[in-house]
Amino acid sequence: MASAALPEISKPKIVDGPGGYVLEDVPHLTDYIPDLPTYPNPLQDNPAYSVVKQYFVHVDDSVPQKVVVHKDDPKGIHFRRAGARQKACVYFHSDDVHACIVTCGGLCPGLNTVVREIVCGLHHMYGVKKVLGIDGGYKGFYAKNTELDPEGGYKGFYAKNIVYLNPKVVNDIHKRGGTILGTSRGGHDTSKIVDSIQDRGINQVYIIGGDGTQRGAALIFEEIRRRGLKVSVAGIPKTIDNDIPVIDKSFGFDTAVEEAQRAINAAHVESESFENCIGLVKLMGRYSGFIAMYATLASRDVDCCLIPESPFYLEGPGGLFEYIEKRLKEDGHMVIVIAEGAGQELLSQSIQSTTDASGNKLLQDVGLWISQSIKDHFSKQKMPINLKYIDPTYMIRAVPSNASDNVYCTLLAQSAVHGAMAGYTGFTSGLVNGRHTCIPFNRIIEKQNKVVITDRMWARLLSSTNQPSFLRPSTNLFSNENGSQKSLDKRVTH
Amino acid sequence: MASAALPEISKPKIVDGPGGYVLEDVPHLTDYIPDLPTYPNPLQDNPAYSVVKQYFVHVDDSVPQKVVVHKDDPKGIHFRRAGARQKACVYFHSDDVHACIVTCGGLCPGLNTVVREIVCGLHHMYGVKKVLGIDGGYKGFYAKNTELDPEGGYKGFYAKNIVYLNPKVVNDIHKRGGTILGTSRGGHDTSKIVDSIQDRGINQVYIIGGDGTQRGAALIFEEIRRRGLKVSVAGIPKTIDNDIPVIDKSFGFDTAVEEAQRAINAAHVESESFENCIGLVKLMGRYSGFIAMYATLASRDVDCCLIPESPFYLEGPGGLFEYIEKRLKEDGHMVIVIAEGAGQELLSQSIQSTTDASGNKLLQDVGLWISQSIKDHFSKQKMPINLKYIDPTYMIRAVPSNASDNVYCTLLAQSAVHGAMAGYTGFTSGLVNGRHTCIPFNRIIEKQNKVVITDRMWARLLSSTNQPSFLRPSTNLFSNENGSQKSLDKRVTH
Amino acid sequence: MASAALPEISKPKIVDGPGGYVLEDVPHLTDYIPDLPTYPNPLQDNPAYSVVKQYFVHVDDSVPQKVVVHKDDPKGIHFRRAGARQKACVYFHSDDVHACIVTCGGLCPGLNTVVREIVCGLHHMYGVKKVLGIDGGYKGFYAKNTELDPEGGYKGFYAKNIVYLNPKVVNDIHKRGGTILGTSRGGHDTSKIVDSIQDRGINQVYIIGGDGTQRGAALIFEEIRRRGLKVSVAGIPKTIDNDIPVIDKSFGFDTAVEEAQRAINAAHVESESFENCIGLVKLMGRYSGFIAMYATLASRDVDCCLIPESPFYLEGPGGLFEYIEKRLKEDGHMVIVIAEGAGQELLSQSIQSTTDASGNKLLQDVGLWISQSIKDHFSKQKMPINLKYIDPTYMIRAVPSNASDNVYCTLLAQSAVHGAMAGYTGFTSGLVNGRHTCIPFNRIIEKQNKVVITDRMWARLLSSTNQPSFLRPSTNLFSNENGSQKSLDKRVTH
Amino acid sequence: MASAALPEISKPKIVDGPGGYVLEDVPHLTDYIPDLPTYPNPLQDNPAYSVVKQYFVHVDDSVPQKVVVHKDDPKGIHFRRAGARQKACVYFHSDDVHACIVTCGGLCPGLNTVVREIVCGLHHMYGVKKVLGIDGGYKGFYAKNTELDPEGGYKGFYAKNIVYLNPKVVNDIHKRGGTILGTSRGGHDTSKIVDSIQDRGINQVYIIGGDGTQRGAALIFEEIRRRGLKVSVAGIPKTIDNDIPVIDKSFGFDTAVEEAQRAINAAHVESESFENCIGLVKLMGRYSGFIAMYATLASRDVDCCLIPESPFYLEGPGGLFEYIEKRLKEDGHMVIVIAEGAGQELLSQSIQSTTDASGNKLLQDVGLWISQSIKDHFSKQKMPINLKYIDPTYMIRAVPSNASDNVYCTLLAQSAVHGAMAGYTGFTSGLVNGRHTCIPFNRIIEKQNKVVITDRMWARLLSSTNQPSFLRPSTNLFSNENGSQKSLDKRVTH
Repeated sequence: MASAALPEISKPKIVDGPGGYVLEDVPHLTDYIPDLPTYPNPLQDNPAYSVVKQYFVHVDDSVPQKVVVHKDDPKGIHFRRAGARQKACVYFHSDDVHACIVTCGGLCPGLNTVVREIVCGLHHMYGVKKVLGIDGGYKGFYAKNTELDPEGGYKGFYAKNIVYLNPKVVNDIHKRGGTILGTSRGGHDTSKIVDSIQDRGINQVYIIGGDGTQRGAALIFEEIRRRGLKVSVAGIPKTIDNDIPVIDKSFGFDTAVEEAQRAINAAHVESESFENCIGLVKLMGRYSGFIAMYATLASRDVDCCLIPESPFYLEGPGGLFEYIEKRLKEDGHMVIVIAEGAGQELLSQSIQSTTDASGNKLLQDVGLWISQSIKDHFSKQKMPINLKYIDPTYMIRAVPSNASDNVYCTLLAQSAVHGAMAGYTGFTSGLVNGRHTCIPFNRIIEKQNKVVITDRMWARLLSSTNQPSFLRPSTNLFSNENGSQKSLDKRVTH
Repeated sequence: MASAALPEISKPKIVDGPGGYVLEDVPHLTDYIPDLPTYPNPLQDNPAYSVVKQYFVHVDDSVPQKVVVHKDDPKGIHFRRAGARQKACVYFHSDDVHACIVTCGGLCPGLNTVVREIVCGLHHMYGVKKVLGIDGGYKGFYAKNTELDPEGGYKGFYAKNIVYLNPKVVNDIHKRGGTILGTSRGGHDTSKIVDSIQDRGINQVYIIGGDGTQRGAALIFEEIRRRGLKVSVAGIPKTIDNDIPVIDKSFGFDTAVEEAQRAINAAHVESESFENCIGLVKLMGRYSGFIAMYATLASRDVDCCLIPESPFYLEGPGGLFEYIEKRLKEDGHMVIVIAEGAGQELLSQSIQSTTDASGNKLLQDVGLWISQSIKDHFSKQKMPINLKYIDPTYMIRAVPSNASDNVYCTLLAQSAVHGAMAGYTGFTSGLVNGRHTCIPFNRIIEKQNKVVITDRMWARLLSSTNQPSFLRPSTNLFSNENGSQKSLDKRVTH
Repeated sequence: MASAALPEISKPKIVDGPGGYVLEDVPHLTDYIPDLPTYPNPLQDNPAYSVVKQYFVHVDDSVPQKVVVHKDDPKGIHFRRAGARQKACVYFHSDDVHACIVTCGGLCPGLNTVVREIVCGLHHMYGVKKVLGIDGGYKGFYAKNTELDPEGGYKGFYAKNIVYLNPKVVNDIHKRGGTILGTSRGGHDTSKIVDSIQDRGINQVYIIGGDGTQRGAALIFEEIRRRGLKVSVAGIPKTIDNDIPVIDKSFGFDTAVEEAQRAINAAHVESESFENCIGLVKLMGRYSGFIAMYATLASRDVDCCLIPESPFYLEGPGGLFEYIEKRLKEDGHMVIVIAEGAGQELLSQSIQSTTDASGNKLLQDVGLWISQSIKDHFSKQKMPINLKYIDPTYMIRAVPSNASDNVYCTLLAQSAVHGAMAGYTGFTSGLVNGRHTCIPFNRIIEKQNKVVITDRMWARLLSSTNQPSFLRPSTNLFSNENGSQKSLDKRVTH
Repeated sequence: MASAALPEISKPKIVDGPGGYVLEDVPHLTDYIPDLPTYPNPLQDNPAYSVVKQYFVHVDDSVPQKVVVHKDDPKGIHFRRAGARQKACVYFHSDDVHACIVTCGGLCPGLNTVVREIVCGLHHMYGVKKVLGIDGGYKGFYAKNTELDPEGGYKGFYAKNIVYLNPKVVNDIHKRGGTILGTSRGGHDTSKIVDSIQDRGINQVYIIGGDGTQRGAALIFEEIRRRGLKVSVAGIPKTIDNDIPVIDKSFGFDTAVEEAQRAINAAHVESESFENCIGLVKLMGRYSGFIAMYATLASRDVDCCLIPESPFYLEGPGGLFEYIEKRLKEDGHMVIVIAEGAGQELLSQSIQSTTDASGNKLLQDVGLWISQSIKDHFSKQKMPINLKYIDPTYMIRAVPSNASDNVYCTLLAQSAVHGAMAGYTGFTSGLVNGRHTCIPFNRIIEKQNKVVITDRMWARLLSSTNQPSFLRPSTNLFSNENGSQKSLDKRVTH
């Protein structure tokens, strides 16, 4: 994402209430377009929703960000609850809606389910017929293409860069991994994208992607607001690493942790079958070690879990090599799980000392690097070891989402659709404390969600693996206690 | 559970606070045993927990039951947050703890993980060495047995009715389905059980089971309190049907919904391969249709989902037969999912008219009954159909828990252990709005968790399947609006 | 299959050779149409096949039926090896071929793979463009339909009763269970079918189905021969039960045995978790117990396997009830696997004594019947038992084929295609002693393949389960020794 | 394996018969120990085997190596059929048998099943109680160990280097991947091993391993024969690569091909989701490409399969880069499967030109090397590509065997046991044309089984992938036609 200065950023919409209640509301089209007409909500005629009015959420429903409270605590920050509103009419007439969907970044189980459910939600709930899929991520908006529909109708076939989507086209896609829309990294060019949106007459933009993508979505929203367009921009946060803040967890995470068990099992079996054998598994997690941590907790076969948030060192007392030696001498085998972003500071030191340019590329893979480091160390020690390195990354990313993630994706997609139809914009849909909410972009992109290593979940992991804390005597975690204390409110503090 | 009148029930512990804050606290041994000594918390010396104090929960941490709020709402009901407490010392010395674990009722994925983690939690976190497994459910407490440990030590082998448990014995059990302790239904005899607890010198009782079992656990707690014993009674709610109130969801539920997909897929494939073919899948859910509902939402291949909470009828306009005929004529095939408790009122009518005693047993299975009813109807209509009936119940129940449930079971078990060590009793550990809490028994057993059919989740399902609402014109759901409104606070209202 | 008298059946083509060599050859179009023109084999220009001539089979290649031999044995019966022939030209010009494919009978893993590979084989290897799928089994040939291709071309979309097939349409179908063509039982009407073949100008008929279906295929071939049509009829044997003779095993069998493990595992887990618990699994096998036998051997958790070929009895010494009681008293649990056709003689006795008409239907399911019989027996004995009955039939049938079956299906389909292009007709393709062969219809339909209970495979099973042989003292297996001896040549005699 | 000259090798036992019949028989203890006593076969009293005599194989049963025959062909080479012999008594008394089992080399699905079935076969069929497991491969025979059984009995627990095996110990091991015995490569020292066998009084040695291991087993047999010991040496061929000659296929192969589908699927999903994306999967196959070939045929999603037997080149017309470019331009994505031993000659050229020692290690991995080569090429071409490299090796090796392999392993183990009890030695058990046989060591180790690229199976693959043959114009496969012709007799020529 280019570090373009955000031009005249819209101010957060903060609503205060009694007892310290704060609502961090999301933008609405009427914030910058006065006198927008409204329409009756088609859901009122939908047999599934029409029977009783409880199906609809109340316009004032909100969800607190923090749910571990003391009796004297102020009520604190809340988010707007997502969902169909009966009384609040919709701001789009079904026939006028021209929606588009784009998927950006790496693969994540559930992408196709989200796409499917936006299409089906728009179609079945609101009678929307025109939904485009943008092919290949952000750059699909503006890259040359031949948007020809030779027969002039909406048929759901694939043109270059554009996919016409309808319920039939997307009917079975949730059973496949990957994204039928195609994806790519980067390629964000705000004005070209908004030009394209404007040129095509698109008025609802659904953007599925990680923090970089959501940052781009925020820029698109701001540009649209600046131009005064009646276009809703809704984000659906996608990150297999679970590194997006505020929300409970990201879709595909459960599936990824489940699938990671296969690799850990294999490492366990290999390590038990050979003498002095280390099974080493690299899992996703560039900045956040959630997959590694949960996969370790779920498996119970892991002896050491290394994540970006918890620095470690190799040599000397309390270091990794000492711990490996101990485990091998006691048990004859061990399993190590390492997140791809762990030990980056060690890795970069190691790389700086290497002048061989061609070698660097390979060393940047922490799994290969640590494998080599361990082998080198024990080779120097004359202690014969076996090391079996497994990198299951693509095999995890590419599976279809499991049942739990399928339901989750459905609700995320429907929340985004309800929000956009209700005229909200500049928001992402997200689960907060088990409820679906609309969260303003700024809260999603302000920082990354990280494992709090002074929190109980990490303590559980340490207790489960019996690994050292890798805190050198000099390390003083108390110094940043205040910062950490705040983090305790995060969801990982079950 | 026998409807024995509860003798001198302990009163709920209610704590009020400002802004309408209410804490529904759990009993504590000191409520009825004054002057209990306390001990330093061994966790303070545990390397995993000792580094910083944030690992511990604050004594005043609580979690609200209701998280969809308006800005003027009172704070409402809260539960005590579960977890290790640093300042509040423990009420048991590690060497004095003599714990037992019992599993009751039907199988559920994750039972073995819960057992494993209670044992490992007590052992690794609190240094507790004496943990018994009671074999075969409640009646294992008092049924004749030969509790011989021939070598006088704690060895982790199996005697009749008693299993000695330690981390090594339970090391791999989470990878197996079922329960290594064995289980049974019923068999609750309060005084015999408490006699057995007293005789054996047990002072921590962990009871894993459904609502009937938790009702039994409440009776055991009351009897123990009446006798003035220093025995903590902790429940871990187990129900594959997810029919226990207050908590977010029960362990094993995710795994069950996942595994149900296989059966639905098979029904889908069968139905698509034959002409006028109905694939019919019976899923668990005696009183609550959660598995059927979530499995339907996750699959997207289901055309009709029948659950206990939503009455339906077969004949006439708006009835099931009419809908089946419509689907077959339009698509040539359909998939029906039925929860085992659905249509019981129809079933009992049908049975009353049948006088053949031996036939009744078979008819009580709603899957076989509805299969026959559909076949009979279309046979009378001279419309040839194929019907493929699948009952995957045991194949679902018996699988090991998936990764997500494994982590969940770990936290439930650890919460129970922390609570019991801290002297709490008469509570179940449970997830409330994503946080682990201690909930007083009375809240768990007062009613069953049910799908709220005037809620959005059911609307989503109706919208997904396009099935009729089966509400006859005369039905007026508004009449019980107030009752339903309250239910909207339930977790299924994402 | 109607018992229509076979009109003027073609005589088997027997070729004799030295040393007792016998070739049971398959019919050829030139047998009844003289002076057929031949064409160069397009495979000679296929890059994959063109490099060297070894890719092609020799015209005289044959495969012996019997491979367990003594040094003085005659050479015995052989079948024609399947495969592309270089020198023997093909009897169809690619542009003239108009093929059709039909799937009949119950589902079996791999049906879609066979369909896919016939289409792709014809297309890629021989340049054949016109392939029809007949929808819904034999009756799809003549049932009313609207065979409209609105745009006059071969597009691969679905019309009623007819599916236009090409490599793109079938590209992903091998990953799905069931059959995209639809299937049905019965519906065979020889003259209507041959009329339809003649009317449509079809000249290659691929028929995928079990023994009844192959019997129908033989009638179709005879009628075509009688009419003197240049139409090749090729069968691909399909039977999940593995009950087709001569061939090594049927496609889908491996997948079925694999999938059956899930049910047996579930039965094992259930039975171990409850007291005196019997896990009972019904598996496919109407006349042949191969799935039950192999699933039992693969699992090793089964205590009793009941198949149609091995009669058993319930009461008295050496009976099933006695064995169950013994197992429960010793182990507390057991697993029984029963093939659907086992114990039919007991079942029919039991039904005759029941006069309740409505009950009969349910009792015809051997699984329900034996469950009830066991419960009744132990109820009379006052011995409390738990019985968990699992019928995984549809869940097994509906899965996609595994990798091994996928490869097998590919070769079966290609063998059929090579045979038909070479002018052979009235044959099925089948694996004999690990080689693909063309087998005349009469050998496939003359009898059913059955488990030989005096053979070593069944001995291995008995040895693995330790179940009684259920041979009453009076039973004398030696009396039919000669018949059994012949059966020893069957493939199950590994 | 040390290239030690085989001292006084035993001559092959060849038996001739009429019609060109040749039996390549296996050695027998009586070949070098005259007047060995025999004992009645305990199987005659085994209920499973005792009923009728057909359970037993005839002493003269043999199986031809070649089953594709012409009518005038001589009968050719045969192998002795494996199995229990009734009339031929056994050469060991059950109480005298002292067996040991060793697993060598890399992991392969099914190792534990073979171990289990040797133990159970010896125990249940022949009443043998003394079975040792040698820990950690060949070197476990002689490495220092403390073979203490503290209670003087056979208890099935683990001592260092020695595992006491009985049916209870091995009961569930077939559900686990890996080998409970542990394994290692190399470590063969004939005299130390035979010393150890002699010292321990072992008289049946079961050796599970690949071609190197079987070569070692042959040396052990020769040394035992030289010393005149009454010790049967039986091999069970283990090679996940399927590179052992004569036999139909090796155990674990089916499971490996099945598991490889996951990696190919992931590569397919990844490649379809990104622009110009290549999914590259490295599969096992150091010298033989069977896994790669079968996995490709089973998957149908692979565009190029590279194996050791089929040389290829990168640059220029007809090369790999040209083909990749073509595929990407036409489809936008492709999947490549490469066996680990493919392209070794290219790799070694590339390595020779690299002088950086530390880099070499990584380059020796053909997957990493070819990934880099492809990236470098298209980077030079200024054509942006994505490449996703997956190495699933350990995840494939470590899974438990599937149902089909479980049955296969059972029969292999039982054949070895029957052979050893009958006094045969110096043989491996193996499946030949679907029948279990005893094959003399010399036939197993004389060469490696390889994919015959002039055979039909490879033609099928080329036809399926449409990849180029990578035969440069100058290549003339006809020159070695005679050699290839011989290979056509191999089983891969279905």
